[in-house]
Amino acid sequence: MTITITAFERSPDGGKGLARDTRVRWALEEAGLAYEVRPVSFAAMKEPAHLHLHPFGQIPTYEEGELALFESGAIIFHIASHHPGLLPDDTNARARAVTWIFAALNTVEPPILEIVTAKFQEGDKPWSKERMPLIADRIRQRLNQLSARLGDADWLDGAFSAGDLMMVSVLLRLRPSGILDEFPHLAAYVARGEARPAYQRAFADQQAFNTRPTA
Amino acid sequence: MTITITAFERSPDGGKGLARDTRVRWALEEAGLAYEVRPVSFAAMKEPAHLHLHPFGQIPTYEEGELALFESGAIIFHIASHHPGLLPDDTNARARAVTWIFAALNTVEPPILEIVTAKFQEGDKPWSKERMPLIADRIRQRLNQLSARLGDADWLDGAFSAGDLMMVSVLLRLRPSGILDEFPHLAAYVARGEARPAYQRAFADQQAFNTRPTA
Repeated sequence: MTITITAFERSPDGGKGLARDTRVRWALEEAGLAYEVRPVSFAAMKEPAHLHLHPFGQIPTYEEGELALFESGAIIFHIASHHPGLLPDDTNARARAVTWIFAALNTVEPPILEIVTAKFQEGDKPWSKERMPLIADRIRQRLNQLSARLGDADWLDGAFSAGDLMMVSVLLRLRPSGILDEFPHLAAYVARGEARPAYQRAFADQQAFNTRPTA
Repeated sequence: MTITITAFERSPDGGKGLARDTRVRWALEEAGLAYEVRPVSFAAMKEPAHLHLHPFGQIPTYEEGELALFESGAIIFHIASHHPGLLPDDTNARARAVTWIFAALNTVEPPILEIVTAKFQEGDKPWSKERMPLIADRIRQRLNQLSARLGDADWLDGAFSAGDLMMVSVLLRLRPSGILDEFPHLAAYVARGEARPAYQRAFADQQAFNTRPTA
């Protein structure tokens, strides 16, 4: 069955790989699955056809036969559940890998996204600049804890899993801020993720997609 | 095997059920599982013994034999995966229910938690009050979309699932703000969740726990 995901018609980052379709592309590449990408414009995202797929009017979505999913966490968990290579076989190890997917999305990503909110939704407010160091400190608190847990291990819990895929994807969003480089263990962890052939293919594909000539 | 979860030694909300152990208690009650609760003080949360269980120094955690988990999403997904009643049997319906767990935690909860950040971490800043209406509008945007999807259905996708349990739990945190009452469909949805006998037991237990006499 053909797998189709949606992506920004043109990502606001110009192809730096920070939009959420990149993490889904990465998971599909790790699982060795072919897929198609349907571009969605910002206008189309708020229209009924897309809202039917994604009630919050965002990307990515995932379609496979009769199944339609949204939320990158749910999509990656679905891919990882049905194809080898992204979740351990052992039941307990599997539950722990799933825990890291949730930790990436619900504990590490929210303070990172505060940067986006501060810049793009409150960028014209008088407090915008003054809040940035406070947001950065909240991010550093999380990264300190994450770095302490990772230590000098390659991945968060044994072999590479969908939990690492998600955590690396979330941490990558920090690169423009410079904060990631303050944590050498985490910077090396992210670099290990980026070095995986599946990530390289996913990155190259999203870059080509986002820099393709306009029709 | 005994299931042990952790909770605040005394919840900052004084037993209103807004701490994250309540949603785990609710899932355990839906699954008909007995469990023990170990209180953790704010000081102990930052100590090595607890950080070993929860790298970000929060509650709840979940222990069952050799398995130790953190993140309410992962814990509830684990419970729902191993006991009937919280996830549909059909593969596609199951993937969609999991999608709502992620949507609750990653799309709906982050703007709601901005209220907490603004009040408790930036409450002494000159911009604190002026930001509140902006935060409230971002929450309203999400609730509008969620309400449009729910319509006048009882639950988000067919029968009650762990996705509804998580979404109701996240929306409950909004009640003190008054914003939930602006959305009658969502307010009724939350009330349906609260009316479930399993929720009632979970709520009563956390309330008794948080108002017990000190030693």
